Amino acid sequence: MTLGDLVQDLGGELLGPPGLLISRIAPLDAADPGCISFLANPKYRAQLQTTQAGCVIVSPAVRDEASARGAAIIADDPYLYFARLSQWWAQRVRPRAAPAIHPSAVVHPTAALGRDVDIGPLAVIEEGAEIGDGVVIGPHTVVGAHARIGAGTRLSARVTIGFDCVIGERCILHSGVVIGADGFGFAPVQGRWEKIEQLGTVRIGNDVELGANTCVDRGALGDTILEDGVKLDNLVQIAHNVRVGAHTAMAGCVGVAGSTVFGKHCTVGGGGMVLGHLTLADHVHVSAGTLISRSIHKPGQYTGIFPSDDNASWEKNAATLRQLHSLRERLRALERKSP
Amino acid sequence: MTLGDLVQDLGGELLGPPGLLISRIAPLDAADPGCISFLANPKYRAQLQTTQAGCVIVSPAVRDEASARGAAIIADDPYLYFARLSQWWAQRVRPRAAPAIHPSAVVHPTAALGRDVDIGPLAVIEEGAEIGDGVVIGPHTVVGAHARIGAGTRLSARVTIGFDCVIGERCILHSGVVIGADGFGFAPVQGRWEKIEQLGTVRIGNDVELGANTCVDRGALGDTILEDGVKLDNLVQIAHNVRVGAHTAMAGCVGVAGSTVFGKHCTVGGGGMVLGHLTLADHVHVSAGTLISRSIHKPGQYTGIFPSDDNASWEKNAATLRQLHSLRERLRALERKSP
Amino acid sequence: MTLGDLVQDLGGELLGPPGLLISRIAPLDAADPGCISFLANPKYRAQLQTTQAGCVIVSPAVRDEASARGAAIIADDPYLYFARLSQWWAQRVRPRAAPAIHPSAVVHPTAALGRDVDIGPLAVIEEGAEIGDGVVIGPHTVVGAHARIGAGTRLSARVTIGFDCVIGERCILHSGVVIGADGFGFAPVQGRWEKIEQLGTVRIGNDVELGANTCVDRGALGDTILEDGVKLDNLVQIAHNVRVGAHTAMAGCVGVAGSTVFGKHCTVGGGGMVLGHLTLADHVHVSAGTLISRSIHKPGQYTGIFPSDDNASWEKNAATLRQLHSLRERLRALERKSP
Repeated sequence: MTLGDLVQDLGGELLGPPGLLISRIAPLDAADPGCISFLANPKYRAQLQTTQAGCVIVSPAVRDEASARGAAIIADDPYLYFARLSQWWAQRVRPRAAPAIHPSAVVHPTAALGRDVDIGPLAVIEEGAEIGDGVVIGPHTVVGAHARIGAGTRLSARVTIGFDCVIGERCILHSGVVIGADGFGFAPVQGRWEKIEQLGTVRIGNDVELGANTCVDRGALGDTILEDGVKLDNLVQIAHNVRVGAHTAMAGCVGVAGSTVFGKHCTVGGGGMVLGHLTLADHVHVSAGTLISRSIHKPGQYTGIFPSDDNASWEKNAATLRQLHSLRERLRALERKSP
Repeated sequence: MTLGDLVQDLGGELLGPPGLLISRIAPLDAADPGCISFLANPKYRAQLQTTQAGCVIVSPAVRDEASARGAAIIADDPYLYFARLSQWWAQRVRPRAAPAIHPSAVVHPTAALGRDVDIGPLAVIEEGAEIGDGVVIGPHTVVGAHARIGAGTRLSARVTIGFDCVIGERCILHSGVVIGADGFGFAPVQGRWEKIEQLGTVRIGNDVELGANTCVDRGALGDTILEDGVKLDNLVQIAHNVRVGAHTAMAGCVGVAGSTVFGKHCTVGGGGMVLGHLTLADHVHVSAGTLISRSIHKPGQYTGIFPSDDNASWEKNAATLRQLHSLRERLRALERKSP
Repeated sequence: MTLGDLVQDLGGELLGPPGLLISRIAPLDAADPGCISFLANPKYRAQLQTTQAGCVIVSPAVRDEASARGAAIIADDPYLYFARLSQWWAQRVRPRAAPAIHPSAVVHPTAALGRDVDIGPLAVIEEGAEIGDGVVIGPHTVVGAHARIGAGTRLSARVTIGFDCVIGERCILHSGVVIGADGFGFAPVQGRWEKIEQLGTVRIGNDVELGANTCVDRGALGDTILEDGVKLDNLVQIAHNVRVGAHTAMAGCVGVAGSTVFGKHCTVGGGGMVLGHLTLADHVHVSAGTLISRSIHKPGQYTGIFPSDDNASWEKNAATLRQLHSLRERLRALERKSP
């Protein structure tokens, strides 16, 4: 692929030879002359001087510095330009096969399939399911009865969509995702647990991406909802009746307990836990490893992590922590005596 | 469905017209006149005055207050009544199809199937497996060689039961559950890890429910055991040779390390971690996000969470925490000087 | 099986009758006269006096003590001997069936299969995949296009290997493992997330074992790499472009964020979280439940856990923790006043 092809499709101002061939995208510090690279974070600016990249994507602010060293593409937002380049590249190196329905797939005769639907080997589409135009369904994926999958959505190998659940358009669900298992609901009765049947569904908006082995449970009475543009990484647990606001993103191993409502544009770092029946405002950012046990009404970054240390130091401080309240009392006593 | 039908099947005292039609179950604050609702937690009592519900399920203590506003069902335990109502409802809105064995399922000729077994598309039942009466096996579920599944148990789509494992009666296993993968056992030898073959199995009692993508490993020498009535939420990890006492429940993302023994009627909140080779008494409750590193011999609630805060406050306190032991020494020094 | 057979194959010095029959391997405290047991940890030495085991595997240091009570095998490293015994035992009680390709498997005609490959029911091997000699592929496992699986590797039921990914020799991947789902990469653009296509793959060395439902994402530009001998337990998350050094082991529920580089011979305890773009030296050991947020350049044990306590004590100490920084200031003020 040449720089000329690339700029013709993606825009940006090209400084350098349109005929230059590019064979790979690479970070500045790993690029060779056949690579295109990008400078998104100003703190790596010094790498412009040392990179071997054949072409660099940069912002207008470093135009002169970049073009002095070789070919460059000037873009207002180099990281966004890189994202679009990655998409353009993927389409070229991994062109999609013509859509087809593999003969080993088990498609119920009452399922409604749109145009250009691709269904992999051994997938199962149950009765009354509705599959939109251009949907791709990987091998071993199960779409439950009366579930609906919006146009352009891609389900990888081995995804499970429960009955009645609704997935929007242009979503990507990775392998092992389980949508619409029962929420965890029981009434205690004389030391045993009586099951509360989960009568709701899961409704997922457009442009949502869910990572491998992530789970979104169906609601108990109402529905569990992921709004448009939500992105969840791998092994995330979303409990029943949670609502996640648009464009909120959660990293791997996060858990959200039942009925919690997330605002829009929130983030949760890896391993964060959010308890149930809470409300989080828009633009709340929960740090990795943090447990949130109260509602948060103000945007901002929230953290609660025991800082890690070498084990011996940790042991001393952790042991003292168990006496912290009494230390405060002793401090108060001293203060009272102090003149 | 009418109130009369409902009370005829579930009991309780009906105050109001038996012919009243109910189209949905809803919480008090989301109910409309076609809904039945319930008051289980006294702190929501004020909602009785404002709910639009056509009928409310209440305890005898609020009988007058409830009947003054419209139809009511009086039940000793309204939450249990609601649980049973949800089960009654699910049977009506999602009646089970007549049991059948899908022609695409791969059932080994030596497998023993009980009466009224339902096996979904592309399920695999390996040699010598025993499937009890009325068992439902979802699409893509694999029952390994010589495994046994008790009567009335339901395996959702894509569950894996390892060879020789035993599942009790009336259990529910959700999609992605893996029973009987190898426990994590290795002997260190000159910097490498030598595999210890896991020679035990998993034995699960009756009325156990396991959430999506939850894992229960097989034992190294003995077995891993979940007693009757255990309920595990999604993405829970139970390591080899753990024993979980009857009616213990664990929320999502919990991990229990090898050979730990849980008492009966315990609970673990979301994201809790329990280290290996520990013993927990009956009625021990571990808070969400808490790591348990020692055995617990007394019933009660146990917690260990760094309280979350806005990031700036957290940073100040966390930084000071690294000096906590020396702060205590300084406090002691002052106390010694103080008259 | 007799002690004589065992020692003939595994070595060690037998003190006792070679004809003694062994029916089971058991821990010292659960052994009966038909059992063989082992003493690996000196702290259990007293159990030598009370065990009912027919034979015990011990180190030369307790030779006399062990042989005084009955049959014994003397081995330099009794735990390693036990590991090899477990392997020897497993081969006898669970002999592998002759390799075969189940007729229901969907194998693309361009896939290249080595000798003695075993493919279970309903497995899917996509175009151009290369399967080495003696590989075992369980039911419902999917090997993506152009993926390569090294000789002697065993994929359990329901494993997903993404396109282009490479798995080494003699690996074991348990059910639910997902290799090569997209890494979690997005460029923020006006409040939405623009997908960065993940153009790399996953490369896994030899003798790697991955637990149930564990995920290893493909790299964004370069690859995600697990070196030889890495062992990951269940429900572990390895993000894009992580590199895990040889013989590093991680317990269940661990998460490692993107681009982090682990040294060799490291360990991470259950539920540990390691943030992204960090470097950990060889022989770094992260305690269970600990979050690592900075690179670690020195070998050693690192910990950061809020010590658990009964809930009332925790509440008092945790509440005080929010004032820790101001307590330090008050302590300083007192110190300044103190003569």
